[in-house]
Amino acid sequence: MAELPLYSGLEHFRVTGPAPFVAHVEIHRPTKLNAFHEAMWLELGRAFRQLSVDPDVRAVVLSGAGDRAFTTGLDVQAASQGDTLSGGGAADGARRAAHIRRHIVEFQESVGAVEKCEKPVICVMHGISYGLAIDLSCCADVRICAKDTRFAVKEVDIGLAADIGTLARLPKAVGSTSWVKDVCLSAREFGADEALAVGFISQVHESKPAALDAALKLAGLIASKSPVAVQGTKELLNHGRDHSVEQSLRYTAIWNSAALQSDDMQAALLSGLKKTKPRFEKL
Amino acid sequence: MAELPLYSGLEHFRVTGPAPFVAHVEIHRPTKLNAFHEAMWLELGRAFRQLSVDPDVRAVVLSGAGDRAFTTGLDVQAASQGDTLSGGGAADGARRAAHIRRHIVEFQESVGAVEKCEKPVICVMHGISYGLAIDLSCCADVRICAKDTRFAVKEVDIGLAADIGTLARLPKAVGSTSWVKDVCLSAREFGADEALAVGFISQVHESKPAALDAALKLAGLIASKSPVAVQGTKELLNHGRDHSVEQSLRYTAIWNSAALQSDDMQAALLSGLKKTKPRFEKL
Amino acid sequence: MAELPLYSGLEHFRVTGPAPFVAHVEIHRPTKLNAFHEAMWLELGRAFRQLSVDPDVRAVVLSGAGDRAFTTGLDVQAASQGDTLSGGGAADGARRAAHIRRHIVEFQESVGAVEKCEKPVICVMHGISYGLAIDLSCCADVRICAKDTRFAVKEVDIGLAADIGTLARLPKAVGSTSWVKDVCLSAREFGADEALAVGFISQVHESKPAALDAALKLAGLIASKSPVAVQGTKELLNHGRDHSVEQSLRYTAIWNSAALQSDDMQAALLSGLKKTKPRFEKL
Amino acid sequence: MAELPLYSGLEHFRVTGPAPFVAHVEIHRPTKLNAFHEAMWLELGRAFRQLSVDPDVRAVVLSGAGDRAFTTGLDVQAASQGDTLSGGGAADGARRAAHIRRHIVEFQESVGAVEKCEKPVICVMHGISYGLAIDLSCCADVRICAKDTRFAVKEVDIGLAADIGTLARLPKAVGSTSWVKDVCLSAREFGADEALAVGFISQVHESKPAALDAALKLAGLIASKSPVAVQGTKELLNHGRDHSVEQSLRYTAIWNSAALQSDDMQAALLSGLKKTKPRFEKL
Amino acid sequence: MAELPLYSGLEHFRVTGPAPFVAHVEIHRPTKLNAFHEAMWLELGRAFRQLSVDPDVRAVVLSGAGDRAFTTGLDVQAASQGDTLSGGGAADGARRAAHIRRHIVEFQESVGAVEKCEKPVICVMHGISYGLAIDLSCCADVRICAKDTRFAVKEVDIGLAADIGTLARLPKAVGSTSWVKDVCLSAREFGADEALAVGFISQVHESKPAALDAALKLAGLIASKSPVAVQGTKELLNHGRDHSVEQSLRYTAIWNSAALQSDDMQAALLSGLKKTKPRFEKL
Amino acid sequence: MAELPLYSGLEHFRVTGPAPFVAHVEIHRPTKLNAFHEAMWLELGRAFRQLSVDPDVRAVVLSGAGDRAFTTGLDVQAASQGDTLSGGGAADGARRAAHIRRHIVEFQESVGAVEKCEKPVICVMHGISYGLAIDLSCCADVRICAKDTRFAVKEVDIGLAADIGTLARLPKAVGSTSWVKDVCLSAREFGADEALAVGFISQVHESKPAALDAALKLAGLIASKSPVAVQGTKELLNHGRDHSVEQSLRYTAIWNSAALQSDDMQAALLSGLKKTKPRFEKL
Repeated sequence: MAELPLYSGLEHFRVTGPAPFVAHVEIHRPTKLNAFHEAMWLELGRAFRQLSVDPDVRAVVLSGAGDRAFTTGLDVQAASQGDTLSGGGAADGARRAAHIRRHIVEFQESVGAVEKCEKPVICVMHGISYGLAIDLSCCADVRICAKDTRFAVKEVDIGLAADIGTLARLPKAVGSTSWVKDVCLSAREFGADEALAVGFISQVHESKPAALDAALKLAGLIASKSPVAVQGTKELLNHGRDHSVEQSLRYTAIWNSAALQSDDMQAALLSGLKKTKPRFEKL
Repeated sequence: MAELPLYSGLEHFRVTGPAPFVAHVEIHRPTKLNAFHEAMWLELGRAFRQLSVDPDVRAVVLSGAGDRAFTTGLDVQAASQGDTLSGGGAADGARRAAHIRRHIVEFQESVGAVEKCEKPVICVMHGISYGLAIDLSCCADVRICAKDTRFAVKEVDIGLAADIGTLARLPKAVGSTSWVKDVCLSAREFGADEALAVGFISQVHESKPAALDAALKLAGLIASKSPVAVQGTKELLNHGRDHSVEQSLRYTAIWNSAALQSDDMQAALLSGLKKTKPRFEKL
Repeated sequence: MAELPLYSGLEHFRVTGPAPFVAHVEIHRPTKLNAFHEAMWLELGRAFRQLSVDPDVRAVVLSGAGDRAFTTGLDVQAASQGDTLSGGGAADGARRAAHIRRHIVEFQESVGAVEKCEKPVICVMHGISYGLAIDLSCCADVRICAKDTRFAVKEVDIGLAADIGTLARLPKAVGSTSWVKDVCLSAREFGADEALAVGFISQVHESKPAALDAALKLAGLIASKSPVAVQGTKELLNHGRDHSVEQSLRYTAIWNSAALQSDDMQAALLSGLKKTKPRFEKL
Repeated sequence: MAELPLYSGLEHFRVTGPAPFVAHVEIHRPTKLNAFHEAMWLELGRAFRQLSVDPDVRAVVLSGAGDRAFTTGLDVQAASQGDTLSGGGAADGARRAAHIRRHIVEFQESVGAVEKCEKPVICVMHGISYGLAIDLSCCADVRICAKDTRFAVKEVDIGLAADIGTLARLPKAVGSTSWVKDVCLSAREFGADEALAVGFISQVHESKPAALDAALKLAGLIASKSPVAVQGTKELLNHGRDHSVEQSLRYTAIWNSAALQSDDMQAALLSGLKKTKPRFEKL
Repeated sequence: MAELPLYSGLEHFRVTGPAPFVAHVEIHRPTKLNAFHEAMWLELGRAFRQLSVDPDVRAVVLSGAGDRAFTTGLDVQAASQGDTLSGGGAADGARRAAHIRRHIVEFQESVGAVEKCEKPVICVMHGISYGLAIDLSCCADVRICAKDTRFAVKEVDIGLAADIGTLARLPKAVGSTSWVKDVCLSAREFGADEALAVGFISQVHESKPAALDAALKLAGLIASKSPVAVQGTKELLNHGRDHSVEQSLRYTAIWNSAALQSDDMQAALLSGLKKTKPRFEKL
Repeated sequence: MAELPLYSGLEHFRVTGPAPFVAHVEIHRPTKLNAFHEAMWLELGRAFRQLSVDPDVRAVVLSGAGDRAFTTGLDVQAASQGDTLSGGGAADGARRAAHIRRHIVEFQESVGAVEKCEKPVICVMHGISYGLAIDLSCCADVRICAKDTRFAVKEVDIGLAADIGTLARLPKAVGSTSWVKDVCLSAREFGADEALAVGFISQVHESKPAALDAALKLAGLIASKSPVAVQGTKELLNHGRDHSVEQSLRYTAIWNSAALQSDDMQAALLSGLKKTKPRFEKL
């Protein structure tokens, strides 16, 4: 499938348009099992900031190229050649800390662009899905996987606490704290069924193609609905996670005081009555 | 069963007293599958504000009249005849927004009275349970349903983001964010088993009567216990949802510094030893 | 197994060292089914404050002595002989309240030392696990149990709302609010399978010895990893529970700006490549 | 001046319309130096909930009738005849607490209606302004006083901690915590100059009539401006007090995404250029 | 004046009882201008934890012995001999960080005991009041000083950001952020008049004895009032600083639901009418 | 003075280096009294993001070119020619809102870069300082002004609530809420003395050159100190504004666990003893 022109300059990601208003973002570094290095996550951030405001996109599917891995996570070899861990070479502990801190913040912001993207993002996982794979998928809205997926919050095994988002988002994405701490502290692998049982994943499919197909169907369904309604729903659910119910209700009322001034409701209601497919203006 | 006199003036709800200290509130607009219009939710709010301080009530069961629906949600026809979406007819976007905002806030406060009710509320769902059905049940403490229940966070399909509480409360009521976003963004139906698996519902029964029976039994059990203990437990669980553990512990200590000055503990302990049924003063 | 000398003065707890860097804390009041009185929880607090900074400990297993109970909870008889509920004998409601409040706060802080312990704590439950058993286990990081465990949030049955942490922590430890409110309001018993299904427990084993064995294996695994990574992971997960994702990400970046200035990453990576067991400095 | 018809049924307050879009609310119980009893604060709450949505009101001035007192605060005599402090006559400390709690909450909500009023409220104080006078004025937006005003956070002198809002709002209304604690802990009187120096008051005038005149002028000025702009400003300032800067900025952007869809900007700009007085639609 | 027996074992503080229910705590290391070393701040923490629950104390005055300094702050010489800055001698940056972190937390908790003390604390400053002097006085409720006081947030001049509380509490204690940042970033000295003008101090007196005298008078006045009212007022003001107005109002209602069950109101009212001095039970 | 090469490409700002480690940023659109249009605030954001990490900058002074105005605020003419207020030309209220929201957020982030700049920013105001002038200066750390400065929170007069930060930051920057609401609701002008009295400004000087001179001196002083200490102090003060004291203390301890691993303390102490000027490594 042809790449969407707006995104054709990306080096490590392929962005195609498999259906109207649906963008498919593929992590594309197949020679390295889609492992991430710095230029790559910076590119990821730029891509999702663009998708966020692209009026031709209403839903995004994110997957990894190749059969073996969604992504093996951080490219440790590349990382160890950079100067981050040496703190930019500073002799002083405080200055090394500043260097490291700025680096982590930039990394977090790049990956966090997936969560901040105004359009829903459906993540399709398969094969090895280690470390950064978890950070990244936690930023997506819906997680779907193939039966063969091998998940691990792997960071402890390379001597660090995960710092790109897993420890902040995973406990809020699944219901069992005991399970979260088990997998985060032990760095052990878990499979698709376990991920489904605890609610990290909401669908498991036989194979990567089947999972991708399901994701594209869901994305197509979402993209067929009012973008005012869909994007408002994503925004309000994300806001709700980090605020009290009372704060959320107030924010929701303010949000909808503008969002309800839309023709989409009329269009949606009419098409519901007439059994036709509604058309919604771009957003 | 006879209506409780204090609530006999309600037009769209029937409130009966099937057991000591138990009130059963039935949404009662059977000709319209219990769909809600404005006068109805205002009445709902008044009813639960009364139940909250009614010393003869210690547990509440909320269900919908008829075989086909707990409630189909908002009465869209009635809503489209009101002046809310036209912003009270104002020409100006800002003034329309103010009109809509006040309307949403009033709607939220009416439905929110179920959550604020000091007595536990057990919600029994069956048949069609769309849109406002979810907002409403999210305000209850325990959710029980019949096997035939057809749930949907339906708002996206009529062109808006749900604004009466579902997006604020549902993610805090169940463990899987991926699932929550799936059903909220797609507006798809889900059934009783799925609702049980993700923890939205805590019991599924063969039929509406069986579900109602189970709810009344649970309500009866709760109503037989110390109202100081029960109402304190509801308050502290609700407070905890929106505060840090540390804030919660402090609030709990302050709350119990008065609540432990009660004869109920003595009564509960004695009746435990003597295998008798304790009597507790009204609250 | 011999007690660890540093903890040999404890009266109601036995602390042994079954594996390198693993401490096993056993609640040890077998004549009373491990029921807690005041001196006992104060001792518990002191023990875990010590474990928190003990460089020879990297993971802790907490279990209860005897076959019949992890703990039956508060020793109600002992409590009723104390002067807490009489408010220290004060005539005045406000002064009684101050007395009770200080007592609850001290009790909360003692039990909370398990949560604040910088090393991961794995709690193994079996038999009767009522009341304080839940408060206590909610402070642990991972919960494992034997098939025979009988759990209950029992406080309502003795006339009070649980105030040592269950109502603050349990809803954040499991995904289904409907289930949490059911068991907290009804005080009913639930078993291991139900606890597993809702995610309160993350492993169920055939017997107490099997559960203990699994816990010690997990503790051993965790203790073999970088303590910088492990303790950072616990800290960041606990911080995340009570803060927004954005606050968490920032805190994480600051934390790791120092934690990444460690030799553990190098050691972990090398041993990964060489398939050897890394050695980490004490922490 | 004639009372505004909408408010003519009030027993303890006189509401007049001294200028276009300005309402003047006078506490009017001159025989008792404007001391408040329960029926009176309930009426206050109703009045301000009405003013909040009254399209003919854009600014409110609140003052006290008579020469001697804005208000002496709670009518202690009336309060001691009620059943609040006896906890509704309950024998049990927990039940008395519930009774008292509900009473305080209702009292807080009545007085808080002044803060929640969507239109700015300018409070004019003079003479004795004790206890509830401070709670009440802390809910206003701007505080102006006569030189003879005698302020006191008097509650400690009648044996209680102020609970209708002073302790929550005063520290956020003035800059010096040391001063706030001094006057709250000592219950001492302070005068207009001291109140001005610490920023509690923003204008002091020679006499009550002069202060009232200044307040009416300010109210008139505010009422001449875009109500979209004015009411948005009040809302955003109140929101900001209780949220982080980041939360505030986001809320502001959402709020103004509707509020900027107004003709008022055009009208304001044009009238600025033409030196004419703009006319704004009702809100 | 004789030391209070309960506190006579303190090495670096003298605690006397100059008036009924008033304790005077004097920092007493005159040979070193009251500079603090580790043993000293640990002792400070213990002393204030005792004062907090001492029923014979209702108000505390804190001052520094000698003519020249309230305190010059941290004893830098002693600190440089300890092993804190060397991180306990650890080679590894992460382990040094853990060592330093635990040290700072313990230091913060010791000084924070002044703020957590349930009884009001009036701090009297004079002469050199540098660094820790500001941290410490920010924990007090009321700050009074002599004209000769020389204040400085001195930490930047010894190469660190103040970490014992000044940067957290000072901006919430005074109104002008521009001023706070000026003195914290420049480490410059400021005098009593400037401290008064910005509201850091609420009274300035001619000399240390005059300031101490004023503090003792204020403490005596506070100690003569209902301890239920006074201690509640302190608690609620401290709670309010860190919570929204809405959270504060709720907490206040819960607090007073027990606190109003006191005989102190009756006693206070009667003595007000009879112009007698009320007697209040211990707390 | 020559522009700093790194910033010489800026069109609307001149950045010079008047002293070691000091950058002077001048708003430079003299033909329009420094009024801001969109390209200009985007440039401002980029400039301060660069200053934030520029190791040759330790303190920043921000002022406006010309004699008459710091800045008159938003260039209303330019704004009315853009498509923001028309919501990008969308017909639909919801889509117009999305367009406006994105525009405001981008504007807020550009101006907010001044606050997020890791180095302290001293703002020097003079002449007309309206609207955006207040938003902008509220992001600075220290505010200094000339006697002739004419301040106004002018937005209400052009029909909108200020949305670039004034309403979020001003109430937290000064102590008197009554004053803040007065100037924000009335849009009236206020002068340097009033700004000083309420603490918005911390120094007033006779003329713009005198004010600028004072700012440069202060910047020079700050730049001569340990950048680890200075930048930590700014970070912790900003963090503290939006968090509870307890959260702040914890964050501070984590921050300093790395920051104290610095040679700056040794250097600062030694130079203090030797009366020499310390040299600090870049940061």
